[in-house]
Amino acid sequence: MDLKEEALALHKEKGGKLEMRSKVRIENQHDLALAYTPGVAYACKEIEKDPSLSYVYTAKQNMVAVITDGSAVLGLGNIGPDAAIPVMEGKSILLKELAGVDSFPLCLKTQDVEEIIKTCKYLEPTLGAINLEDISAPRCVTIERRLNEEMNIPVFHDDQHGTSIIVAAAFLNIARLTKRNLKDMRVVLSGTGAAGSMVARMLKKIGVGTINAYNIQGVVDKEKYVTYDFLIQELLDDGVFDSPKNHDNTLASLLKGADAFIGVSAPNLVSKEMVASMNKDAIVFAMANPVPEISYPDAKEAGAYIVGSGRSDFPNQINNVLAFPGIFKGALSVRSKKINEEMKLAAAHAIANVIKEEELTPDYIVPSPFDKRVVEAVSKAVAKAAVETGVAQI
Amino acid sequence: MDLKEEALALHKEKGGKLEMRSKVRIENQHDLALAYTPGVAYACKEIEKDPSLSYVYTAKQNMVAVITDGSAVLGLGNIGPDAAIPVMEGKSILLKELAGVDSFPLCLKTQDVEEIIKTCKYLEPTLGAINLEDISAPRCVTIERRLNEEMNIPVFHDDQHGTSIIVAAAFLNIARLTKRNLKDMRVVLSGTGAAGSMVARMLKKIGVGTINAYNIQGVVDKEKYVTYDFLIQELLDDGVFDSPKNHDNTLASLLKGADAFIGVSAPNLVSKEMVASMNKDAIVFAMANPVPEISYPDAKEAGAYIVGSGRSDFPNQINNVLAFPGIFKGALSVRSKKINEEMKLAAAHAIANVIKEEELTPDYIVPSPFDKRVVEAVSKAVAKAAVETGVAQI
Repeated sequence: MDLKEEALALHKEKGGKLEMRSKVRIENQHDLALAYTPGVAYACKEIEKDPSLSYVYTAKQNMVAVITDGSAVLGLGNIGPDAAIPVMEGKSILLKELAGVDSFPLCLKTQDVEEIIKTCKYLEPTLGAINLEDISAPRCVTIERRLNEEMNIPVFHDDQHGTSIIVAAAFLNIARLTKRNLKDMRVVLSGTGAAGSMVARMLKKIGVGTINAYNIQGVVDKEKYVTYDFLIQELLDDGVFDSPKNHDNTLASLLKGADAFIGVSAPNLVSKEMVASMNKDAIVFAMANPVPEISYPDAKEAGAYIVGSGRSDFPNQINNVLAFPGIFKGALSVRSKKINEEMKLAAAHAIANVIKEEELTPDYIVPSPFDKRVVEAVSKAVAKAAVETGVAQI
Repeated sequence: MDLKEEALALHKEKGGKLEMRSKVRIENQHDLALAYTPGVAYACKEIEKDPSLSYVYTAKQNMVAVITDGSAVLGLGNIGPDAAIPVMEGKSILLKELAGVDSFPLCLKTQDVEEIIKTCKYLEPTLGAINLEDISAPRCVTIERRLNEEMNIPVFHDDQHGTSIIVAAAFLNIARLTKRNLKDMRVVLSGTGAAGSMVARMLKKIGVGTINAYNIQGVVDKEKYVTYDFLIQELLDDGVFDSPKNHDNTLASLLKGADAFIGVSAPNLVSKEMVASMNKDAIVFAMANPVPEISYPDAKEAGAYIVGSGRSDFPNQINNVLAFPGIFKGALSVRSKKINEEMKLAAAHAIANVIKEEELTPDYIVPSPFDKRVVEAVSKAVAKAAVETGVAQI
């Protein structure tokens, strides 16, 4: 069986990938009297007196909704909410299998930003957190920001933050391995959507000196670039994107002498010649999926020192699975109201530090998605950061 | 430990009553490639081509959302969505434990009818069905009707239909046991809210001759009654409620010579004298919870032949658990678009017929909530009725 047949068989065999289970047995009248009427009324009355007790007497304490509108699913584009369900179920089962977090998918039959915001807010009572997923940029940024302001539970858009946290972890480890100072690095970023813009912000936060950005419209240059969206405008205003010198509006011109390339853009954008034109010991993270901006073997052949991608069949896989399970577990464990920048940074450091300095090699910059130490390290660090920044409720 | 302590301990011990489980293992790269990227994309693409395949490749096929706004929870009133969670979790685990149906609770932070309707419609892609719960009347009727018109999945408000289906089953068995013709019966109904109005409709459908209704404003009399809501108006217009003769606007006057009393109203409304004034072999279903309109012993002492209530500590418990698990199981099994009147009637007959005629006694008119035959019988009958009425999709 090829992968397609095997994957479809798996999805069909058990009727999707998740189910609900009762934590209590209902086998006789006494069970019913405790878990349902009349006993359940006591739990209701306690919560009525003190709504925070819904975290004590209900599954809210460990419950995440994985919410999408199906507008930007994987690399498949705007396939709509029905076709998005398998991905959201996948996310749900990863939360459970890797971090013990309960969740269910909700694929919304609307792509209106205000309606999505309102719906999420209506769903708050039953949820401990929301994982937004596969919503197109820049709508996803607006939705996440508004919800984080207007809701009392954490809302995390994995497509924005997941990649950025793991790329930051990779760069922290590159600094450890190569003894280079991140401040001296010039990074070229290809792709300035939801993921790209957050990668840039995180890299600046961990100390990267210069970031030059490129997208489908060309080089992002404060002086020459005209029709950008609000995300790019903010990154320029905030000094996250630096205006590059000496370029002819091509990616090739940006890469000359650059220390690192980060691609969250499109297949085959980078040639071996372009990598060869980069600074010595070049770093290449080509994360377009499934076909990267340049393949691992080609980048290596062209002289790159450290190469990473989104693929599991080459070293240094930048896989969001390293971040979101532990982040939700940590946030829920202290009833955090938010997942703030400090918590994301703490997650990046925790992921990086799972690998001891003496274990680091150019092909072992980030841990494996199946390294069981990662979830524990991330959740503890995230919980600690939540407490320290005052967003934890216990 | 008393019931309160024991119930609170149960709710706290495991952190609520339900959890999500993965149906597939995620232990290595191959598992991840099948259930998540890149394999999951094949399931997405199949559904994009044919949206009905979401019933094949996802958990939608067996997934119910238990939705409330917390406006009329048990007998506790408008306690709001947070305090309602334990009841909805209870409903969810009953669906799973009794019928194998997956579900999760959604307690909405809005009590606006239009917003609730819109939210439910947005949630359609991921859901196989919706169980509306504990929404105050007559709003619940408006919401259910609109959703049944405007959605492609079945929407069932258990508070309206659950009780009515089981009371109908009880009356079908009373007819079998007593060899009485339902057409010759005069039933007095106390309480004309969501449950009461549907009880009246179902009883008329199975052939009960006369129904006189009473509520907090007095006797429902077409000539004298003035300020009724649209539910009562419709029941009068449709000839479900009959205008009674010879009454002085009291329940006592209605009960004189009546064959049956059905209470879905308030505690202690009916005295022994009132039961004694009823026709020979009187039938009394006093279902106010937890304190009925008249207790089982009192009703029996006053001469009632068959007595039922909502309580598990007396015979003939009218427990919704007899209906909704099998109804959802049956509807989902044939991907029904609706739960229509024929399916509800089929459920009533199926519940009644679980008890053989020779097994029937005045104290054994409805099956036990733990009788495993009930779910099977109800789900088969409901699925058959869905197919016969053309609302099934397979």
